[in-house]
Order: sequence, then structure tokens, then C-alpha cells
Amino acid sequence: MKSAYSLRAQPQMKDIESVRRLISSTGFFSDEEITIAGELVEEALAKGEASGYYFIFAEADGELEGYCCFGPVPLTRESFDLYWIAVAPEQQGSGLGQCLMAAAEDAIRKRGGTRVYADTSSREQYLPTRSFYAACGYRQAALLSDFYAPGDGKLIYCKTLA
Amino acid sequence: MKSAYSLRAQPQMKDIESVRRLISSTGFFSDEEITIAGELVEEALAKGEASGYYFIFAEADGELEGYCCFGPVPLTRESFDLYWIAVAPEQQGSGLGQCLMAAAEDAIRKRGGTRVYADTSSREQYLPTRSFYAACGYRQAALLSDFYAPGDGKLIYCKTLA
Repeated sequence: MKSAYSLRAQPQMKDIESVRRLISSTGFFSDEEITIAGELVEEALAKGEASGYYFIFAEADGELEGYCCFGPVPLTRESFDLYWIAVAPEQQGSGLGQCLMAAAEDAIRKRGGTRVYADTSSREQYLPTRSFYAACGYRQAALLSDFYAPGDGKLIYCKTLA
Repeated sequence: MKSAYSLRAQPQMKDIESVRRLISSTGFFSDEEITIAGELVEEALAKGEASGYYFIFAEADGELEGYCCFGPVPLTRESFDLYWIAVAPEQQGSGLGQCLMAAAEDAIRKRGGTRVYADTSSREQYLPTRSFYAACGYRQAALLSDFYAPGDGKLIYCKTLA
């Protein structure tokens, strides 16, 4: 991990493209997902917290090195979804992901959230993602077989915040 | 079940209020859910199928007696969500619900869908809802404890279309 990251919650115009570039660089997201990730930043810029999308951006030397996007699950009292979390390839394994997760959980706790849900694919490619969630204290709460596509199930991870 | 229902897929302006009145009359939905159900009709009127919300409306003598709302799950190849299904209290147990479900599944199949997901609450009040899904061939795929609120979990039902 670089020695100095600055974390901020407020999205800026430049983040739309920076987020797309960042998550594209990881190789873990489809073109459709890359487009949507940028749209969520646009939505938050337009509507603020009413968009339901909150962020943590981590920058070093003015460059976006990681980010996560999360928000309250509609129609629930205390549940939040972790929509996206991504770290630049050269920073992976550095602890930046866990740092982003801790910052997101802190923000969720402050808004009254007690449970965080994160979805991921059951495909082998996402084994590092699943290990990451486990390391952050998430447990598998459900498996929906063939959800994303035949042979590509959805794993739902959950963490109860202390 | 009344002798003559007309089913239609195309939403109309009047449905915004009719849907809110219908689902309010069932006693199974919160104020927030009632508001959202109407908003999904508005969204479909504004954007058409690009909204991602499809409908089946069942009318008798010009009155809305039941409806369901469903759509493709973003980022999945063949999965659909059943967002809402409701039948007027005086028509419950008449078979209209199963008729709506069959019409929705037929529409999903024609759009290439192979799996339908329906969420409901684990609370005792929703036992009739769960029996209804079971009677329609849905099986419980997951339980997320305390998802909606402490003591109020989410049950995810799934049906694979033949």
C-alpha cells in the first residue's frame, strides 16, 4: 500500500471516468458493469444522497487507486448493499481493499445500518473476491445457482456490523 | 373467479392509481411499497420496455382485480424478478393469482427467461404468500435472516421454467 492515500466520500465529475477506468483495469467486470458503475456516480452527482448511492474514493498523487459504492437497500430498515468495490491491479494485496471496506462499514454504521450484503459470482475467476470478503468478516448467506447465467451462480455474502 | 377477465400487458395512465388502490386493499403492503408500485407503472409509461418493468393487468367490468409486475434482472442472461403480484381481496383463492403468474411466466419465456425469482418476508403474515408460491411451483432458494428488519427475514423463491 502506498504511504499516503486520501479518502473522500463526495463524488466529483472526474470520478465518472476514473471509476470506469479503474474497474476496467481490474479485468473483473463486464462492459455493461463498467457502464453502470459510471452511471451510479452520475446519479449521485445529480441527486446527492437521495440517489441511494454512497461512495468512498481512495486517491494517491491525484490518481484514483480504489473505490467502493454502497447504499441502503430500499424497503429495509437496517440493510445496506455493497454494490462495487475495486482496487487498481498494482495495489491489490496491499490492504487498500480492507481499508475501503472498513471506511464503508463505518459510514454504514453511522447511518444506522447493521447488515451489509455483497453479491459475487460463483465462477472460479471470482475466488480472490470471495477470499477478500471472507477476510473482511463476511460469511456466505446464500447461493442462487445459475443466477447470472447457466453455470454462473450468485453468492450472497453478509456481515453483521458490531 | 369471475367468469370473464381481460388480461393486458400494456400499462395505461389509470393503472397508476388502480394499482395503488388494489395493493393497498390487500393489506399486505406498506405505504412505501404502495408508492413504489405506482412509480413502476409511471416509469413503464414513460420509458416503455426500456424501463425493465413489464406487467399483466387483469380486469373485470373495467375494474382492476389483479396485476403483476416483473422484469429482467440486470446483468443476468436469463433471470427475471417477479416484483409484485396482487389480487383483490374478494378474488383471492379464485385462481386469478395463478392465472396472472402463468401469464407472466409465458411472457418471460417468450423473452428468453428461464428462471423467475420472487422475494417475500419470513414473517407469519406472509404464510399465504409462501403457500401461493409453492402452489405455483416455486421452491425456497435462500433465507436472509433479519434482511427487512430485525426478526423479518427475506425468503427468495425460484422457479425454473420448463
